[in-house]
Amino acid sequence: METLKIAIAGFGGVGRATANLLLSRRRRYRDVYGMDVRLVAVCGSRAGLADAAGLEADRLDGLEPGLSGPDFIAASGADILIEAGPSDFRTGGPGLAYIRAALTAGRDTIVISKGALVHSGRELRGLARASGARLKVSGAAAAALPTIDLLDHSLLGCTVIGVEGILNATTNYLLDAMTARAIGFEEALAEAQAGAFAEADPRNDTEGWDTASKLLILANFGLGHDLAHDLMMSDLTVEGIQSVTRPQIEAWRERGLVPKLVGSLASEDGAIRAGVGIRTYPLDDPFAHVRGKNKAIRITTDAMGETVAIGSGTEPLATAAAALKDLEHILVDRTARPLALSELPS
Amino acid sequence: METLKIAIAGFGGVGRATANLLLSRRRRYRDVYGMDVRLVAVCGSRAGLADAAGLEADRLDGLEPGLSGPDFIAASGADILIEAGPSDFRTGGPGLAYIRAALTAGRDTIVISKGALVHSGRELRGLARASGARLKVSGAAAAALPTIDLLDHSLLGCTVIGVEGILNATTNYLLDAMTARAIGFEEALAEAQAGAFAEADPRNDTEGWDTASKLLILANFGLGHDLAHDLMMSDLTVEGIQSVTRPQIEAWRERGLVPKLVGSLASEDGAIRAGVGIRTYPLDDPFAHVRGKNKAIRITTDAMGETVAIGSGTEPLATAAAALKDLEHILVDRTARPLALSELPS
Repeated sequence: METLKIAIAGFGGVGRATANLLLSRRRRYRDVYGMDVRLVAVCGSRAGLADAAGLEADRLDGLEPGLSGPDFIAASGADILIEAGPSDFRTGGPGLAYIRAALTAGRDTIVISKGALVHSGRELRGLARASGARLKVSGAAAAALPTIDLLDHSLLGCTVIGVEGILNATTNYLLDAMTARAIGFEEALAEAQAGAFAEADPRNDTEGWDTASKLLILANFGLGHDLAHDLMMSDLTVEGIQSVTRPQIEAWRERGLVPKLVGSLASEDGAIRAGVGIRTYPLDDPFAHVRGKNKAIRITTDAMGETVAIGSGTEPLATAAAALKDLEHILVDRTARPLALSELPS
Repeated sequence: METLKIAIAGFGGVGRATANLLLSRRRRYRDVYGMDVRLVAVCGSRAGLADAAGLEADRLDGLEPGLSGPDFIAASGADILIEAGPSDFRTGGPGLAYIRAALTAGRDTIVISKGALVHSGRELRGLARASGARLKVSGAAAAALPTIDLLDHSLLGCTVIGVEGILNATTNYLLDAMTARAIGFEEALAEAQAGAFAEADPRNDTEGWDTASKLLILANFGLGHDLAHDLMMSDLTVEGIQSVTRPQIEAWRERGLVPKLVGSLASEDGAIRAGVGIRTYPLDDPFAHVRGKNKAIRITTDAMGETVAIGSGTEPLATAAAALKDLEHILVDRTARPLALSELPS
């Protein structure tokens, strides 16, 4: 049986959840794909662990200081890198060096953190093309919510006219609380921080940057073939929810409207207009009923009309599952004959 | 450039829409896949037309009597069959003979009509496995609404716990009209028939058989690997909307509930419970806002929670686009290297 070696760089909550879910699915990988999938290396920023024979779950609490970095991953002999480090779209974050090294070496790469993709997406796609490595980004594009999948699989062949998405769980939770319970932004934020649904410095979410990052990934990785050049953060108008007031919420409610922080793309005369800001939806729109930490996307095409998807996976498991969906798509590619579940022996 | 020859059997509204959409996308197939895709044969039950050099749109109104049947398709030299004939789940319909012949000959087959898949799905999957032909069924599984796609692509790797779907446009239109305008079933049906949204004999839709057919295709082609044997129509409890009364609708409305005709599957202790019937949804459920001729599906999995998709494509274009999505998935398989749009030159 063929062995496939996986390394995970970035070992916080999502990296650990990915490792554990991967280990729990080893039997599936053997049965469905005939592949012996091994976790051969994990590392955070300062410590890691490697074993070419495969790490078991009980060893993942014993990381060794100093084992980290792209050279550590390369030395592990991994065939596939899963990158799950902290995201920083202004610098590319620590993931950028890992992803660059893996793609340059021809190693298939599954990216979960958004920073490197936003900062250097075009360069990374170029590295993948040059080496023949696969580059998968579902985990960075709203995770369990199907987004890139819809664009490049379910709607394949159609021309995309527009995309709008509720792409950030924290802001949706906050706006939902403000709307449903008539509380202000600061009060909702304090509650969310107390419940660990919002970070101590929430601005990446509340000012719209996380939504904008996902929108750029959708545009550049999902619609890239339609664009003359990659969309960059500077091409977007980005507004957040921090200045939404209780009187505004109340006025919308009186008119039967629900506010959402939405990233949107529209194709107009060959150019793309994109931005992040508040939009309001009437109660008969499915977007009005995307509650709590759920996410949603609406894609309008020439031949299939509107397709709306709403996802409610819980973190970090759902993000891990999105990255491992990417892994299975790679397994499908790597096995001799493309697989459809309908073609399996039954 | 490699040539790929397509035949379409069944040439009513959907077959014609598929032919025209295919012809309009020939440049895309050349640019994206490097394939010269030709429509080499079309036929209805009594007439057809074939030309190995490829048919153009202006010839599709001049079908010649007597050119029909599986042997006619085989003689056309088609590499791929698109089957779009009338659906009959009790007999398999005229499509069954076309699909059997194509799969036996190793011809990739895209099925739009549901009858043969419901009647003989297991046999047809066996024929495809034996010959190595691909068998694609998106057009038969709620068409533009992603259903099979979600199961075998977007949620790949997850264990499906349950599926429920608003899978039939006509009954959703009728129930929506009855609910929104407080009219009875007979009045709503007469309106829909006048507007050509319901057939003269509407029972296949209104009694739930069309929903049940799609549910069986989802189960047997989307979840087939989990089932010890195919689900058959006789395994389902099938109820329709014909006996829903105005007082019932009014009572639901007073309680803030919206009725929908839903096909559902649930996995319980390794067995599948499946059926078709009315379910009611509160106003904060996205299913309550699936209006008119739209469709929807909700899939619950272990690792990604609930995923809801809502589709609003208009017929017959959306169904044609679903079948041609299947065609592009075959083109992806047939081209040397699996394609992701993100990997295209940009």
